[in-house]
Amino acid sequence: MVLSFAGLFCFTIYMIILYTGNGKGKTTASIGQTIRALGEGKKALMIQFIKGPWKSGEDYFFQKTKNFQIIKAGKGFVGILGDRLPLASHKKAAKDALKLADKKILSKKNDLVILDEINVAVGLKLISEKDVLKVLKRIPYGVDVILTGRNAPKTFIDLADIATEMKEIKYKFNPAKQGIEY
Amino acid sequence: MVLSFAGLFCFTIYMIILYTGNGKGKTTASIGQTIRALGEGKKALMIQFIKGPWKSGEDYFFQKTKNFQIIKAGKGFVGILGDRLPLASHKKAAKDALKLADKKILSKKNDLVILDEINVAVGLKLISEKDVLKVLKRIPYGVDVILTGRNAPKTFIDLADIATEMKEIKYKFNPAKQGIEY
Repeated sequence: MVLSFAGLFCFTIYMIILYTGNGKGKTTASIGQTIRALGEGKKALMIQFIKGPWKSGEDYFFQKTKNFQIIKAGKGFVGILGDRLPLASHKKAAKDALKLADKKILSKKNDLVILDEINVAVGLKLISEKDVLKVLKRIPYGVDVILTGRNAPKTFIDLADIATEMKEIKYKFNPAKQGIEY
Repeated sequence: MVLSFAGLFCFTIYMIILYTGNGKGKTTASIGQTIRALGEGKKALMIQFIKGPWKSGEDYFFQKTKNFQIIKAGKGFVGILGDRLPLASHKKAAKDALKLADKKILSKKNDLVILDEINVAVGLKLISEKDVLKVLKRIPYGVDVILTGRNAPKTFIDLADIATEMKEIKYKFNPAKQGIEY
């Protein structure tokens, strides 16, 4: 959020919402937020920084939905789940995703842009905190941005208008159940 | 979650997910969860215990969506926002909502049932913790239930398979912006 006329008239010209923490609900909350936006006739876009090319329930659901697109920019999880990709490949994918995010945000074609797992991409040093801040600091009027992922840098929280920590209280559930967990 | 054969074979026959805390994202996370379920071809239902009859972005969005229904069982916010209803009226609405929830869960017609703001309804003593536990303890095979709302009773957390606290880190945003906040 920035102020017009040096704060004389305070109104939101864009908004950054941040979901972080080790608990469940960060990406799903951003999807729920998307539903609210779509219901109001707005356009939304999600760029996924970490998740790979496989499909989740939301991908199937949104196939038929106008005004919302999910771009899977990530190369899958890094260093786990059988990942054999060189780190350079993950870094390139994340950097390209950030460039794309910048372009899409600046184009103003979407009212809401979700940068899914971008906090994690920064935590893994696939992209730098500084480069993300550059993108966030030039969000144009009328575009809202949601950042998700664990371990959000303090600078992102400082910049955000709304920040929530999804904190795990308990998680006794194994294996992941299709349609609930992915 | 309960165990079959006294724990010899452990598998999920139903699941309770709980979202609590003072932060943003509880209802939106449950809506995102709904999207995942719908994407997998499942049926879902949301019963709103507190929110009143006015419409939010998600109501407009889901008007055209098959396999998901939102039932606004609550009589609006209690004691705030110009509420003039007698407490008895709120209590009756919440009790009826719980009866309906029980019936809908037992019918097994929905794979996912969201009891939105039910924790708040208990906190306001519109319905008793004990009566909700009765409903939760007889969830049949194949039905998942999401409970949302601040100040979830410990007994609900104990019963849940997954519980997340949405904890407010910051919230500088006023007034509520249509399509983001409601």
